[in-house]
Amino acid sequence: MLWSGWGDPARAAPLPEPMVGLLRDLLGVRPAEAPPVGLAGLKVAAPRLAGADLTALAGIVGDGNVRADTESRIRHTRGKSTPDLLRIRAGETSDAPDAVVLPGSHDEVLAVLRLCAAKRIAVVPFGGGTSVVGGLAPRGVDAFVALDLRRMDRLVEIDEVSRTAVLQPGLRAPAAEALLAERGYTLGHFPQSFEWASIGGFAAARSSGQASAGYGRFDDMVVGLTAATPEGPLDLGRAPKSAAGPDLRQLVLGSEGAFGVITSVRVRIQPAPAAREYEGWRFASFDRGAAALRRLAQDGPLPAVLRLSDEAETMIGLADPAALGAPGAAPRPDAGCLAVLGFEGTPENVAARRAGAAEVLREAGGEPLGAGPGEKWEHGRFNAPYLRDSLLDVGAFAETLETAAFWSDVPRLYEAVRRALTETLSGAGTSPLVMCHISHVYPSGASLYFTVVSAQGEDPVEHWEQAKRAASDAIAGAGGTISHHHGVGTDHRDWYAAEIGPLGAAVLRAVKDRVDPAGILNPGVLVPPAPEE
Amino acid sequence: MLWSGWGDPARAAPLPEPMVGLLRDLLGVRPAEAPPVGLAGLKVAAPRLAGADLTALAGIVGDGNVRADTESRIRHTRGKSTPDLLRIRAGETSDAPDAVVLPGSHDEVLAVLRLCAAKRIAVVPFGGGTSVVGGLAPRGVDAFVALDLRRMDRLVEIDEVSRTAVLQPGLRAPAAEALLAERGYTLGHFPQSFEWASIGGFAAARSSGQASAGYGRFDDMVVGLTAATPEGPLDLGRAPKSAAGPDLRQLVLGSEGAFGVITSVRVRIQPAPAAREYEGWRFASFDRGAAALRRLAQDGPLPAVLRLSDEAETMIGLADPAALGAPGAAPRPDAGCLAVLGFEGTPENVAARRAGAAEVLREAGGEPLGAGPGEKWEHGRFNAPYLRDSLLDVGAFAETLETAAFWSDVPRLYEAVRRALTETLSGAGTSPLVMCHISHVYPSGASLYFTVVSAQGEDPVEHWEQAKRAASDAIAGAGGTISHHHGVGTDHRDWYAAEIGPLGAAVLRAVKDRVDPAGILNPGVLVPPAPEE
Repeated sequence: MLWSGWGDPARAAPLPEPMVGLLRDLLGVRPAEAPPVGLAGLKVAAPRLAGADLTALAGIVGDGNVRADTESRIRHTRGKSTPDLLRIRAGETSDAPDAVVLPGSHDEVLAVLRLCAAKRIAVVPFGGGTSVVGGLAPRGVDAFVALDLRRMDRLVEIDEVSRTAVLQPGLRAPAAEALLAERGYTLGHFPQSFEWASIGGFAAARSSGQASAGYGRFDDMVVGLTAATPEGPLDLGRAPKSAAGPDLRQLVLGSEGAFGVITSVRVRIQPAPAAREYEGWRFASFDRGAAALRRLAQDGPLPAVLRLSDEAETMIGLADPAALGAPGAAPRPDAGCLAVLGFEGTPENVAARRAGAAEVLREAGGEPLGAGPGEKWEHGRFNAPYLRDSLLDVGAFAETLETAAFWSDVPRLYEAVRRALTETLSGAGTSPLVMCHISHVYPSGASLYFTVVSAQGEDPVEHWEQAKRAASDAIAGAGGTISHHHGVGTDHRDWYAAEIGPLGAAVLRAVKDRVDPAGILNPGVLVPPAPEE
Repeated sequence: MLWSGWGDPARAAPLPEPMVGLLRDLLGVRPAEAPPVGLAGLKVAAPRLAGADLTALAGIVGDGNVRADTESRIRHTRGKSTPDLLRIRAGETSDAPDAVVLPGSHDEVLAVLRLCAAKRIAVVPFGGGTSVVGGLAPRGVDAFVALDLRRMDRLVEIDEVSRTAVLQPGLRAPAAEALLAERGYTLGHFPQSFEWASIGGFAAARSSGQASAGYGRFDDMVVGLTAATPEGPLDLGRAPKSAAGPDLRQLVLGSEGAFGVITSVRVRIQPAPAAREYEGWRFASFDRGAAALRRLAQDGPLPAVLRLSDEAETMIGLADPAALGAPGAAPRPDAGCLAVLGFEGTPENVAARRAGAAEVLREAGGEPLGAGPGEKWEHGRFNAPYLRDSLLDVGAFAETLETAAFWSDVPRLYEAVRRALTETLSGAGTSPLVMCHISHVYPSGASLYFTVVSAQGEDPVEHWEQAKRAASDAIAGAGGTISHHHGVGTDHRDWYAAEIGPLGAAVLRAVKDRVDPAGILNPGVLVPPAPEE
């Protein structure tokens, strides 16, 4: 993973010149004056951990598995939000962990947590390091270690009768898919972070993949889990569903390392699809397209992938990142709204669903665009984070945020967030392109995923913080949830507190106090602080 | 509701004479020597509430809505398990509440809880009164009130765009369906307790209906809820799904009144089906039938109703309670195993699913029995509790229990529970008929529902407690959950504690202490006590 951006450095692709021109002419994007700092030039503060602490940790996980060198610490600093990247590119390493600890088992995690609780060393679980909500930047801590789970990367067991697999948290998603594919199965979980994200991160952050309409969200897939806490282990899930009390699995899922470290999950698996067909549809407006998606979500048949770009996103071609700026991909004001549908399964099932969906979409005013736009989308589905790096490189700012609501709230949520982003960034002198797509659908609602591109301006992190606050206020005001699949982290914590109310927040604190009385687990992340007396 | 049994007394139907003969010859069932006590002959202890307390409660809910008369107290004593019925028929009223309080609104519930917390009066929320797990019999309390929610019985709002409805907790299921039907919708939630159970009870106990394969479990349907606790309100659910932290809705669902009183739910609704088709299939063995159901659950197409009786249940005709004991319904040892499938939806969808399912079942060795067995099942689907009353009347004992597990654990779970029930009751001199069906299916597992019929013997409550303990131990030993849809109550609490482990139980206590520091909410129900120091 590139320390200052996304993914495999070999896959970085500079923006085509026409695109750079477009950004300059439309948004006033100018190259940054100071070149980014190189890794070798970065400094981190002296570790705040005593040698005896490092020795004690090494006594649990082994000598080579406690690392306090500068590069290891930098590579575990913050996540992959745009502000995270801008800060690290500027050489700002204040959130670096004091050491990186790599446990090899559930029992080692338990022992590390017990030790750290006794010594009041904070612990930040680290999977793929792809958080975009400040989930890896604890607050109010002295020393802290990044607990990198990469050594816990096994497929423990496949149960072909129950169609479940037990996976360790440090397994990265592509490796998990490869291991399952050897046996003819898939998880079907493909979020945009797929190439780097980890199984534990999916569970801890309630991830939702691009094929969620077909395979479900990750929290739907988890039927059992184990977690380690400073107060001992949790082992939950004896059946797919139960009436034996509250579903405590759902209290660990989404707990973002604040309640414990997920040390394994038992997940539903499905036969690898024999057929995959992707296609595009055009709608005259976002409203009409949304109504069509709603019909599929409520009455079926559902594709595995179902998304709809608004006019701006369709026009700018971000719905097709691979072709951005290429000849012929210039803005077309009559583009309407592009929907992408992906069908996966047996050939018969794919054919039947595809025909059924086509009938619904035609009735709803859709115009079929054939396989082309769908296949282009599929080809480029994991490229957006690379594109962001290239945009940052030429002096543009690019960031995303997302929310979800019930269908009847979706139109005002869409307008409110779009207005908040546009007005705030324009007011700061960096008029943005604001684009949106419906990324996930349910019978009763949908998620909205916004992408913003603008010039960086004088202080892009500060500009964005203002815009993000305004967008978060708009989400809250329009009845949306502060996150559909990115999580809470530190960035969303205040809005999350308002969303669950004072008693909801107090319940979270009570749970945290019970499993983590020393307060060492990801301090400042997720759990709203107690109101001041 | 009949105070000493189930449902509408006018619908009671004495057992046909051939059935009584069968019970006598096969199981040694003999008429009870002492006739049951009549309602007028029942006595309850003097209320332990001061007049000032009743006056204060009436100040909140109104004069007519606090009741301390004997009949009101008896009608809110315990639930509808067989031991509950045997105890009340024997005149044993020790679990009677000291008063019945009927709040009219969320705010009144909040005020009642605040008052009761201040005065240390325990509160047992009461919906349909249909608990079969001791959920209405608090433990370790002095005075307690039954908080009967029947006045909160409105359909508050239908959102046709989002396909959701907001329902109050005291709405009984048939009334909810009638209100939704006026607008063309259904919940699709039809547990066996349907005719008397309440919306709040469905949510508080994670109910699962007979059509769960098609419409989902009740906890799947709930997308939002409000609850009142002594420490204030909870208002959860801004979107169908969210990554904003743990899903706190899932902490309230299944909390059985121990964390608060659910004062409204926002639930998914669906268009009332234009077509319903039910049918029967025969399998040579339970294993083969289970494998066929698993194929439908994993690869589809799924009917709305899908169940499979084992050889004993099929043979004895309990799969068809309406015909029990009728001429021609005598045991047939070659009956195999009866599966019932019910398809609901548009005519096209029903036809397509039915044809698809038939292909799968034929391949799996199923023999189609046509519409007859399916329609008979549908006709009698809510009759089993009436049948139980008739069995008790002639001196038989009848009770049910249920569990769920992953598919690979289902065979040993089935054998272990059957053996535990048979051996324990035979050892007590009341050899039972033990019957079972798969009642609910998921891609990764299924639930098993056991019915036991035997002679009452000397002390049927004590005999059953032994058998139930043995069955619960068998469930735990075979990896099942202690309840798939009946809940925990007081009866399952010890096994539940083992199922979620010491830290899971401690988390529940932490939540309870936060929302109910005085410990007034359904004491002794659900939440395992702290281990003794």
